[in-house]
Parts: sequence; C-alpha cells; structure tokens
Amino acid sequence: MKSDNRIFCFSASNTLNALVASVIFCWVPAAAAQEQGTDPGVSSAAIAQAVELRDQAMQGTRAYEWVESLTTEIGPRPGGSAAEASARQWAVKKLSAMGFSNVRIETFPMIGWQRGEEEAAILEPYPQPLAITALGGSVATPPEGIEAELVVFKDFAALEAAGPDQVKGRLVYVGHQMQRTQDGSSYGFWGKVRWDGASEVARKGGLGIMIRSIGTDEHRMPHTGSMEYAMDAPKIPAVALSNPDADQIERIAARGVTVRARLRSTARVVENLESGNVIAEIPGRTHPEQIVIIGGHLDSWDLGTGALDDGAGVAITMEAARMILASGWMPERTIRLILWGSEEGGVFEQADDGGLVGGRAYVYAHRDELENHVMGAESDFGARRIWQVNYNVSDAARPAMQLMETLLAPLGIAPGDNQSSSIGPDLIPLKAAGLPAFSLAQDGRDYFDYHHTADDVLSRIQPGQLDQNVAAYIVFAMIAANSSIDDWGWGAASDGN
Amino acid sequence: MKSDNRIFCFSASNTLNALVASVIFCWVPAAAAQEQGTDPGVSSAAIAQAVELRDQAMQGTRAYEWVESLTTEIGPRPGGSAAEASARQWAVKKLSAMGFSNVRIETFPMIGWQRGEEEAAILEPYPQPLAITALGGSVATPPEGIEAELVVFKDFAALEAAGPDQVKGRLVYVGHQMQRTQDGSSYGFWGKVRWDGASEVARKGGLGIMIRSIGTDEHRMPHTGSMEYAMDAPKIPAVALSNPDADQIERIAARGVTVRARLRSTARVVENLESGNVIAEIPGRTHPEQIVIIGGHLDSWDLGTGALDDGAGVAITMEAARMILASGWMPERTIRLILWGSEEGGVFEQADDGGLVGGRAYVYAHRDELENHVMGAESDFGARRIWQVNYNVSDAARPAMQLMETLLAPLGIAPGDNQSSSIGPDLIPLKAAGLPAFSLAQDGRDYFDYHHTADDVLSRIQPGQLDQNVAAYIVFAMIAANSSIDDWGWGAASDGN
Repeated sequence: MKSDNRIFCFSASNTLNALVASVIFCWVPAAAAQEQGTDPGVSSAAIAQAVELRDQAMQGTRAYEWVESLTTEIGPRPGGSAAEASARQWAVKKLSAMGFSNVRIETFPMIGWQRGEEEAAILEPYPQPLAITALGGSVATPPEGIEAELVVFKDFAALEAAGPDQVKGRLVYVGHQMQRTQDGSSYGFWGKVRWDGASEVARKGGLGIMIRSIGTDEHRMPHTGSMEYAMDAPKIPAVALSNPDADQIERIAARGVTVRARLRSTARVVENLESGNVIAEIPGRTHPEQIVIIGGHLDSWDLGTGALDDGAGVAITMEAARMILASGWMPERTIRLILWGSEEGGVFEQADDGGLVGGRAYVYAHRDELENHVMGAESDFGARRIWQVNYNVSDAARPAMQLMETLLAPLGIAPGDNQSSSIGPDLIPLKAAGLPAFSLAQDGRDYFDYHHTADDVLSRIQPGQLDQNVAAYIVFAMIAANSSIDDWGWGAASDGN
Repeated sequence: MKSDNRIFCFSASNTLNALVASVIFCWVPAAAAQEQGTDPGVSSAAIAQAVELRDQAMQGTRAYEWVESLTTEIGPRPGGSAAEASARQWAVKKLSAMGFSNVRIETFPMIGWQRGEEEAAILEPYPQPLAITALGGSVATPPEGIEAELVVFKDFAALEAAGPDQVKGRLVYVGHQMQRTQDGSSYGFWGKVRWDGASEVARKGGLGIMIRSIGTDEHRMPHTGSMEYAMDAPKIPAVALSNPDADQIERIAARGVTVRARLRSTARVVENLESGNVIAEIPGRTHPEQIVIIGGHLDSWDLGTGALDDGAGVAITMEAARMILASGWMPERTIRLILWGSEEGGVFEQADDGGLVGGRAYVYAHRDELENHVMGAESDFGARRIWQVNYNVSDAARPAMQLMETLLAPLGIAPGDNQSSSIGPDLIPLKAAGLPAFSLAQDGRDYFDYHHTADDVLSRIQPGQLDQNVAAYIVFAMIAANSSIDDWGWGAASDGN
C-alpha cells in the first residue's frame, strides 16, 4: 500500500527540482503519524543528511572517475587471475586514500577457468569461419578439434524433445534469441541453454554444443558466461556463437542441407587460485556490529574490461560510501562496502554450486555473525539509471522502506513491491542465510547487448546516469544504517535464491 | 544549371507516389524543346519502359535474395581465394539461369595476401589484450612477435612532424578518429594513415604500426583494409585497433606513463593466385559493340561476409540487369554486368598500384576496345538508399543526363553536379583511360561503422532500401544504353582517378 500523501507529492510536480523540494514536505506528515505504525525510526537530522547527499550526488559525483580508472588501469580481471589481484590492490589503495576504516582483503581459495585458443567453422556445404567464444567452465575439445555433423535445434525445448539418435556423435547448435527487457527478468529463461545445454547434449551422446549467445545485440560479438556440468553426464565443450553467426547457421539449416562443422577450444579449469573480497567500512556509532552492505563485484569476464559488469557497480557504491564518509556523518550501524571477488565464475570448494565465489566465501567466513547483517544491496546491472526499488522486508521495517521510497522518488525511482526475491548476485548466499531481499533496479534495456562480450568497455557508460545511481545508494545506506528499527525480516524469506 | 520545370516537379509534391506520377508530365516539355539542344535521344518507348521497370522495382525486387544467397552460401571471399572462386561459380550459375548472354569468367593472375594469427597487448604499465586486425598487404612480425615501447601520436601529422629519435626501435600508435559523413568523401583524408602510415614509421626506424581503425563505430571491431609500402622504406607490420582499444591507449598515454606493448602477426603475401571478373550481357541491337557497364565486386575482406562490401552492390546491379532482361527490352547498346574480382586488395602485375585488381585486369584485357565503353556505374558503398547522382559528361550528353535526373528524382535522388570525379572503384582504371565519371551516391552515414569488419554481415541490410537502388540502376542503364547520343565525353576528364 502506498500512502496518499506520497502519491500526491509524486504527481503534484513534474520536474526534478520541484520533486526534490517536495520531499521534506511529504515526509513530515508521515513522521508525525507515528501512532499509525509508520515511524521509520530515522532522525530528522539523518533524513536531512540523506537528502543533502542525494542532491549533492545529482550535481555530479566521482563515480565515472573510479570506473575509468579501474577499466583503464586494470582492464579485464577474471576471478582468480593476476589482474583481479591487481584490482584488489587498486581498490585498497583508493579506499585507504579516501579514509575508510578497516580496509582489508578477505582472501579465499577457488578453482578458476582460463580461456585458451578457440575457433569454429562451417566445413560443409558452405565453408566459412564462425565467431564463437567458449563458455566459462567449459572443457577443451581434443587438441585437433572436433569435426562432425552439426544438428540444429531451434530452442532448448526442441533439444530436450530430441532422441539420442538425432544427437549422438554430432555437434549440436541450439537457438532461441533473447529479447530485450527493462528489468532483465527473463535472463533465467533465456540463459537455461547456457547453463544446462551441454549436459543435455552429452546425455544424448553429442560431442559438443554451440549455443546462440545469451545476448540481444546484432554484432559479431559472442557472449560468454558461466555454464555448469551435471553429475550424470560426460563433460563436453560448450561455446556461444554471436547472433549473426547463429542467424547464418539457421539460414543454412533452413536450406535442408547437411551441415558439417569444426570446433576447437583449449579452455581449461585451473586449480588452487586465490581471490578475495575487498572490504571498507564507515563504523557504526551505536551498533558497530550491525552491518548494512553495499557493493559491486571487482572481477569481470576476460573478453572486455568489465565496465558495465561490474566496474559501474564498483564505482557507484564506492562513490556512495565515499560521499557519506566525506560528509562526516556517523551512521548508527556500520556501512560496509564490499567489492566482491570472482562473482562471474569459478568454484568455492565449500559450496555446492559454481560462481558467486566471493559471496559464498563471505558467508562461510562470517558464518558466526550472519544475523548481524541488517540489509544489503549490490549494483550489478550496468550503468543506466535506476527506475524501481523492490524488497521483501518485515512489517516492522515497512515504514523505513516507505521513507526510502519517498526519498528515491525525486530520482525518478518508482516503488515496486514488497514480495520481491531480487537481490544482487553476491548477496544471494547471504539472502539464502536470511538477509531480506532488496534491489535498486537499473534500466537494463541494452544491458544484454554488451553483457559478457568484448564490447563491455568504458564507452558504454554515460557518466550522468552513474550519478543518479550514486544518489540512490546513498539513500539506501543512510536509511538502513540510521533507522532504529531492529527487525528487518532476517530469515523470513530465506527459502529461495 | 537545373531546368525550371524539373525543379517545379520536384517541389510540387511531397509523396513518393505523387512524384512518380509527375515524372512523365515533367519530361514531355523537356523533350519537346529539342531545338534548345535538350534532346536526350531516347525514344518514348524506352523512357516508358524505364519508368515501368523503375516503378516495378519500387514494388519489390529479388536483390535481397541474391545478397542473402551470396553471403550465406559463400561467406567471406578474399581476392584470389578458393571462396572467391566459389563466388564466381555461384554468379555464373545464377546469371546463366537468368538467361543472360555471353556469361563468362575473365580470369587474371594476381598476388594476394592472407591473414594469419594476430595478437596484441599492452604489457606495461597496465597489462591487457588489445583487439586488432592486420591490414591487408602487411607483413608478419618475427615469429615470436615484437615487444617494445609504444609511442603515441594523435594523428598522421604528428607522426610526420616527429623526429626519428621519437620513433626508432619503437612500436607506433597513430590516432585520429574518423567522423561520419553522408557521402564518404573524407575516407581519403582519414584513410591516409592506413595507406601510408607504415612506411612513414619505417623511415624513422619504427618496428611496427598500430593505427586507430578507419571506422566510425564504437565497438571492439577493428577495421582492416589495404595498406601500401613505399619503395624507400623497410616493410614493417601494420595493424588496426578497434576504436575502444584506441581510446584505451590514448587514456593510458594521457597519464604520462611509458607504455610497452606486444604485437604478433603471421600475415603473408601469397603469389600466383587466380581471380576473375564475371561478365553477363544484354546485347545491344543497334550497337552491340558499345558498352554500358553496371556491376559490383564479388570479393570481400576475410573478416565478415561482405554483405555491405560488396554483396549489396552485386545484388543491386544483378537485379537491375535481370529485370531489364526479363522485361524483354532490347537496348540499343550492350548492357554489360561485371561482377568484379579482387577489388579490395592484391596486386595485378601489369599495374603500378595495388588493389582494384579486377578493374585493372579488365582494362588490360580490353585495351584494344576501351573507347567502346560509353558509360559505367558501380554500386560499392553499402545497402542504403541513393540520395544523389553526380557525373562529368560532355555537353552533348547533358540532355540524356538531365532526362536521367528527371527519372531518378521520384526515387528521392537529387541532382548533384557535372564536375564530379566520383566513380565506383573498379571503374577507376577505365576512367583513367577515358570513361566519363558517373556515380549514384548512396547514403553512407553508417557505412564506416561496419566497413571492413567482422560485422559486415547480412543483418546490416534493410531489404527495401536495396529496391530503390535497383530502380536507380535500371534508370541509368536504360537511358545510357538507349540514347542515340554518341559523344558522352570519353577522354575529356581522364587525367585523374
């Protein structure tokens, strides 16, 4: 339910400046109505500070400077690599210079993956090279490559419906073109073929899989990303084709000809790597042991420089924390900035699933103090503006969230709902342990044009849109870290991830 | 000078259909004014046929079908390659099935070039890979590659101004970002660093050159293209960086640090190759020996499937000729469709310069009958609509050109001028021999986004825009091949190319 006065405020003005001015007015009657169970438990001074910092961020931040520095000076930084270690040093140096407390790296061991040489081609009837990239975690082909008939399935359902006779001894192509969405919500639907396709093919005796990239662009830019092998199937090579190459294969197959293809990859799993989460804090003055997390992940895929995924998230949340710190405001709870390691791929040995290594390692390392985590948010969906806020908190915490919504509305951010399961990926393990869901949803309409490709570089970012993100993370951190509400819903929705 | 009645017609209506209807009306008074030296020498029947075929083309053509077939079934087709030979067979089969006369391949020997493995990286201070591609004709690095300081010049002029002490023993980067234009006229300006950069570096003792791609996009798509070595300089490796990679190098250099880089390429020149021009004709009934040429080039760079460069030109001109043929119209002169071989690179041994091998070989093979060539046009600037017609003909031929302009105007094509030196690249050698300049200028605003990259594939083409091109080439061929004018200006402007 949205209160009338908030709705009135939002519709009463149509310029950003007017909305900013309206915020204090709107909130005051809500605060006065404490007897109605609407007290967010945040002091007027804290609210005023949140508003001031928010508006200051909208006048310009240093977020672009941080992502420019990270992507230029480090470049690609796969989980467990030397470049990712350099990124941790980069972060420690920056965060120490900014004056954060308790700047440190929490290292963890991991199993990683390394791309090698990779090539693919149509051999018959129309010989030509194909633009591919190996999927993260995939095994190599034999050194000489695989040459075999290529059987074409229009989508994952068609592959599932196929008998082993159609697949055995062959290479397999699976199509289905991902479509653009604002919220990225269908990534799970489109991504299934990437995560599960190889084992589905292998169970039917196939030699390797080439999927249409999980991506929405029309360039010769294959999209990598993690894949998984099921326990009950042989491990076979798995690569993604660019969308135009997938179109080409479908056009050829539509001619009713038998297609032969070649695939070679020397990708390999690498054991005994080290990664780490970089942590910096603004200590809480009342409840230093209680933690509000913001952050992004430091690692990236190897193909691009990880500007959108997730240099932007690192920069946005670093800058939000830096601006709070620089203001001299001392929050009630600790604001903990976590720049996560190895989100994209790799394996944490204590975990059942791959990926999210930093998030899993954090939960493992902090397993005796998990309930001290009040709320958390991760920025990991590119560099465009935030358009919606969603969460799943206790009734007790609703007034604080409603205050947050009121302060976010002037940024053009609409309230979503309180049944959300969305949270940044590195917080999924913590959410499985009990952390309430929370997300500041970015506009991702073109996110999957660049996601996990060589094209994820700095020129994708419009600096001004980062500033709006910084403003929103300031609001989140200031309200969550300064509200006197105790019960935010820990454990209430811990059944999913 | 433009006649008033043509200007009146063009401005009197603002929809395509209305303009089409106005054409006959406009032209009739011009034809009636023969005593003013305005007789185009074209029969009313020929004009009516040109208009009918033009309008039929605007209702839909098969041009997209041809470019889909060529790019799907052949793929990339570098000059002198087996794939280019397959493209010639593809063309002969199609053209024979269409019923053209004298379908043949005029083969010629050539020296070609083959890409090998290629890689580049920044080694210090910020190690990361770079997206590069070797330039056509460039030599290999030593097998182990080159590792050296990378010196950064903002443009070709800065390189020219540099002393040998700045260059000697180093790798050289040269920037200067090409900007979009509608007519592509600044390609020569921006392209200079590609053609001449390596020798300029080599004269100063440099080890290799990495240029910012001659391209207008923002993707990790390096643009290849031919380069040339001067006689007075050692041959050194030459590659192009994608625009984002060039941005990255410039950002790093702006930090004032010393950059070390690595470059490796195994590209090589290949001797004793064969290419060919595919020729098909609609024989002239009055002057079969007099030739009007239309065409495009069959070869492409190796990175993409050559949909824009020049599958589109092949398809447009094939289809224009096919529609004239299929109509049963017998032109006064021979309409000769030439699908040129090895336009992009390679060397014809009898020529001084590289590239345009098919065009040079054609002039050499037909050296005893060059003056029989009346007019010629090549489509080789992508797949967007034509917006202007330009030429350089004799005064005697102006009435025919004015008629052509009148018939092109309903297609949204504006008259340019009669001092043009523009002509399709494969016709440059013939123009140097005496052929009058003529060009149907396509809208190339995004042509250099894709030009010579892996992204030059079928999805770049909007089928409807091909149809307008077909209609324009029909008009050109019908007027040039059916006018009784004898002197079109052969030899009048043969001093340039």
